[in-house]
Amino acid sequence: MALDKDEVSSRVLDIAEDLLNEGGAINLKARTIAEKAGIAVGSIYNLYGDLDGLHLAVNFRLLDRLSRAGMETMTQMQSSRVLDTKGRLLALARTYLEYVAAHPHSWAALLAFSPARIDAARREDYIGRLDGLFGIITKVLMDDKKLALDEEECVLNARILWSSVHGIVTSGVSSRASGNPEVETWRQVDHLVTVYLAGLERHPGRLTH
Amino acid sequence: MALDKDEVSSRVLDIAEDLLNEGGAINLKARTIAEKAGIAVGSIYNLYGDLDGLHLAVNFRLLDRLSRAGMETMTQMQSSRVLDTKGRLLALARTYLEYVAAHPHSWAALLAFSPARIDAARREDYIGRLDGLFGIITKVLMDDKKLALDEEECVLNARILWSSVHGIVTSGVSSRASGNPEVETWRQVDHLVTVYLAGLERHPGRLTH
Repeated sequence: MALDKDEVSSRVLDIAEDLLNEGGAINLKARTIAEKAGIAVGSIYNLYGDLDGLHLAVNFRLLDRLSRAGMETMTQMQSSRVLDTKGRLLALARTYLEYVAAHPHSWAALLAFSPARIDAARREDYIGRLDGLFGIITKVLMDDKKLALDEEECVLNARILWSSVHGIVTSGVSSRASGNPEVETWRQVDHLVTVYLAGLERHPGRLTH
Repeated sequence: MALDKDEVSSRVLDIAEDLLNEGGAINLKARTIAEKAGIAVGSIYNLYGDLDGLHLAVNFRLLDRLSRAGMETMTQMQSSRVLDTKGRLLALARTYLEYVAAHPHSWAALLAFSPARIDAARREDYIGRLDGLFGIITKVLMDDKKLALDEEECVLNARILWSSVHGIVTSGVSSRASGNPEVETWRQVDHLVTVYLAGLERHPGRLTH
């Protein structure tokens, strides 16, 4: 029975994602994928151009999935009336933490994947999706009228908050602290959001250009 | 002319560090090191046990060097009378930024090196040196009597600040923003320290247990 092209590409994508998630970018090998998918190595190149093209396709799917998870969190908060900025930021941070825990190596490989390796046509689209993720945090800050931040400031603060949470989650610092590493990571994320928001409330609109 | 053991170990260490800095942990290969050092592969194992042992020896040296750079920054600030907390934290962040820029892959490999791979006897020593690095930031926060933070709070905030700066420097988020990536990274670090400190000043001593 011949498989149709869509079925083969999606199977190749699933296998590639599993490989990335098991061992990062060095684990993404055309021969392994071909064997697991029961197809010729050449078919992979026909579908995705090269391994970078395949990795990029996995990354697009990872970004879309994280974006969907973030939007779902926003919808849930809307229905459960979580409207305060701290509660919303913490719920988004929790979504990110759970996402990284579920995709540890493939997410690290995505972050290590330089946009410079992407052809110009798709680079815009790729960077656009990353910006879309920061856009969720930006919106939370924009919605808080008490903070009185303009859009540029919300974008800047959203990027800083994202990088800081990311740094706490991935630096492994908390795993060296005593006690349960997950509890310690969350304690640090909570404290970061609390202190940072207190700072933003104190200096509304003040940009350190 | 026979080389003495110390000379060979230090040469092996230099080569290992160069390899790590060029291509990360997967670039650390006993055969390559042996060829470059002009010694037998077995000599490397005699000196360092295994490749993890060699990697660990490089990491110890990287930590010591960063610690020394941090202490020098502290001394310089003392002599040039930079005594405000924001100025001191920014100078330390700048030191870290420059250090990461000078050791991009070897530093990433150090962070990816799990302490679980270290034998118990040396793990304490390793974690102790990492704690020593956070200790420099902790001291800056302790010195600021206006913040009125106890030691536990200073340790927690030092870890958060370190991870946040680390996240900004390494997440590559700033490189996707428009303009000069280095300028944008520094703008984010400066803004983070400013807002975070404003938050700490507002909630002195308040720990989110």
